[in-house]
Amino acid sequence: MSPTLVSLSLRYEDHRLYILDQRNLPHREDWVAVENPDHMVALIQGLAVRGAPLIGVSAALALAQFAMEKPRKLEQLQKVILQLREARPTAVNLMWAMDRMSREVPGGEAEQVERVAERIFLEDVAMCEVLASHGEKIVPERAGILTLCNTGGLATAGVGTAFGVMQKAHEAKKAIHVYACETRPLLQGGRLTAWELAKAGIPHTLLCDSMAAVLMRMGKVQLCIVGADRIAANGDFANKIGSYALAVLAKHHGIPFYVAAPLSTVDLTCESGAQIPIEERPGEEVRGFRSAAGAVEWAPHGVPVFNPSFDVVPGNLVSGIVLNTGVFSVTEFQNQKGN
Amino acid sequence: MSPTLVSLSLRYEDHRLYILDQRNLPHREDWVAVENPDHMVALIQGLAVRGAPLIGVSAALALAQFAMEKPRKLEQLQKVILQLREARPTAVNLMWAMDRMSREVPGGEAEQVERVAERIFLEDVAMCEVLASHGEKIVPERAGILTLCNTGGLATAGVGTAFGVMQKAHEAKKAIHVYACETRPLLQGGRLTAWELAKAGIPHTLLCDSMAAVLMRMGKVQLCIVGADRIAANGDFANKIGSYALAVLAKHHGIPFYVAAPLSTVDLTCESGAQIPIEERPGEEVRGFRSAAGAVEWAPHGVPVFNPSFDVVPGNLVSGIVLNTGVFSVTEFQNQKGN
Repeated sequence: MSPTLVSLSLRYEDHRLYILDQRNLPHREDWVAVENPDHMVALIQGLAVRGAPLIGVSAALALAQFAMEKPRKLEQLQKVILQLREARPTAVNLMWAMDRMSREVPGGEAEQVERVAERIFLEDVAMCEVLASHGEKIVPERAGILTLCNTGGLATAGVGTAFGVMQKAHEAKKAIHVYACETRPLLQGGRLTAWELAKAGIPHTLLCDSMAAVLMRMGKVQLCIVGADRIAANGDFANKIGSYALAVLAKHHGIPFYVAAPLSTVDLTCESGAQIPIEERPGEEVRGFRSAAGAVEWAPHGVPVFNPSFDVVPGNLVSGIVLNTGVFSVTEFQNQKGN
Repeated sequence: MSPTLVSLSLRYEDHRLYILDQRNLPHREDWVAVENPDHMVALIQGLAVRGAPLIGVSAALALAQFAMEKPRKLEQLQKVILQLREARPTAVNLMWAMDRMSREVPGGEAEQVERVAERIFLEDVAMCEVLASHGEKIVPERAGILTLCNTGGLATAGVGTAFGVMQKAHEAKKAIHVYACETRPLLQGGRLTAWELAKAGIPHTLLCDSMAAVLMRMGKVQLCIVGADRIAANGDFANKIGSYALAVLAKHHGIPFYVAAPLSTVDLTCESGAQIPIEERPGEEVRGFRSAAGAVEWAPHGVPVFNPSFDVVPGNLVSGIVLNTGVFSVTEFQNQKGN
């Protein structure tokens, strides 16, 4: 029996994986047939597929396709698992998904690999639902909600993490207005979140990252919520660059600041944020912008650039951690680890 | 006798005004002959000429050209003064320069108009020198300096305000490294300040606005310094959007935050920042980017946008105000008004 799996940004059908190329959104919706693991790695590294949970699910399904295509030796599979596992250094879900594959299918049986990949997909959908239901409770009846980057159906196989919380609040008829930070340098907020908010019919406004502070001062923001790429045991977490600034600004303005992420994002081997490796990306991303919509370099060609892909938000700036197991204060999280 | 006036971004020669079109920097250095006051207004509104002091100087020279071109009636001149005065609502220097014209040349004599315009130019050059010399004293012997937008020879007729302070510190052989925020949406930092820093030979790094907080946390920033478009009597000031966020972040990290501006930026008729009108600019600036380097729209076509051009930094976040009359704490400024 061949599973058919469909989400906003993934399709797995007849043992073949297709992904929505997020680099071309919002102007073009291009679906790409994933050819092989090398191709999957390139798609992940090129940010055609992005969002920590979605990367893990995609890698698992790419492995399933590879296993089902023709008979593979166990060592071939093991090599591919390692290759996929290292596609992005910060996303712990990717490592988690690949380690699970090694653990649950030690013999590398193809159908079994596909079944585990399917389970990873379905669990991600269910995880989003549960997480969003927990998180929805922190949203006031009327609220301006500030968010960063993209955390919805383009970042997960389901309704998303921080985005799912907002979507559930909207479905519960709460009067929310989402302020989406554009999220330089890759503009996931401007390109992706703005597109998803319109698709979901949620009232929204796009702004530059530097404008968030003014909005807070104007009293337009009652809640900040962002996703996470990795949460350390002490409640520090890594997320898209700009998260730390928003957390400091929220603190200054007395606005609650929440992080929403699946339990698989929690890395208990990581004691604090200081141990999370931060990927630095190429300077050309800051010198200009390039997508299917066009390309422009506005800065001087060789200007030296600082381009950390993520930053770390210290737990003491975090009002609460929304997991699929519930909403926890940082102290609760440290004691229970959300389990 | 015909004055010849030359700066990094202005040239007045044979009674004709030429401006460096800043929209085309850093890739092209196009000089534009200013045709008439309408053209000057368009160049100001289109941001070909920008920076509060430079706008005032440019408008004065455009008026001089208009007066010298052929005999003008006094009421024609008065009409043009009003027209130029209203080209941008936030820049108080523009109003100051035009009001000075009305006051010092009440009869509208052409040579006299030109002489006052020349004086405004030369005073701006001298003002920058004096301001920079005062401000240089606040720069430590070794310092990472964070700045926003553009405040140098592309914003004034001289070495600039905040930029001038950095340039003087560099000339004094202090080991400074300038971190230039790109300054979305119009990217004056990425396009202009990066270009000027390279021209001046000052070590520098470009970053996205959202990355400044991380740099502060890393201990790389010892001083923040920005310009101002208007300073209210209580020490609140309006400056490029993003200034307020940087001020809050600097406070959180215990980093001194200074503003540098000419005395003509001080508006004593304005009691506090609450009275400074904030220009909102078109949404398309946030949905994408357009310059001579190219154009790209990356956000969904019709997405609603928040695009304030300026924000207000409250005086209580300001370590000191650098004027051409000296460096003042906000309390000193409130008492002495820098005079």
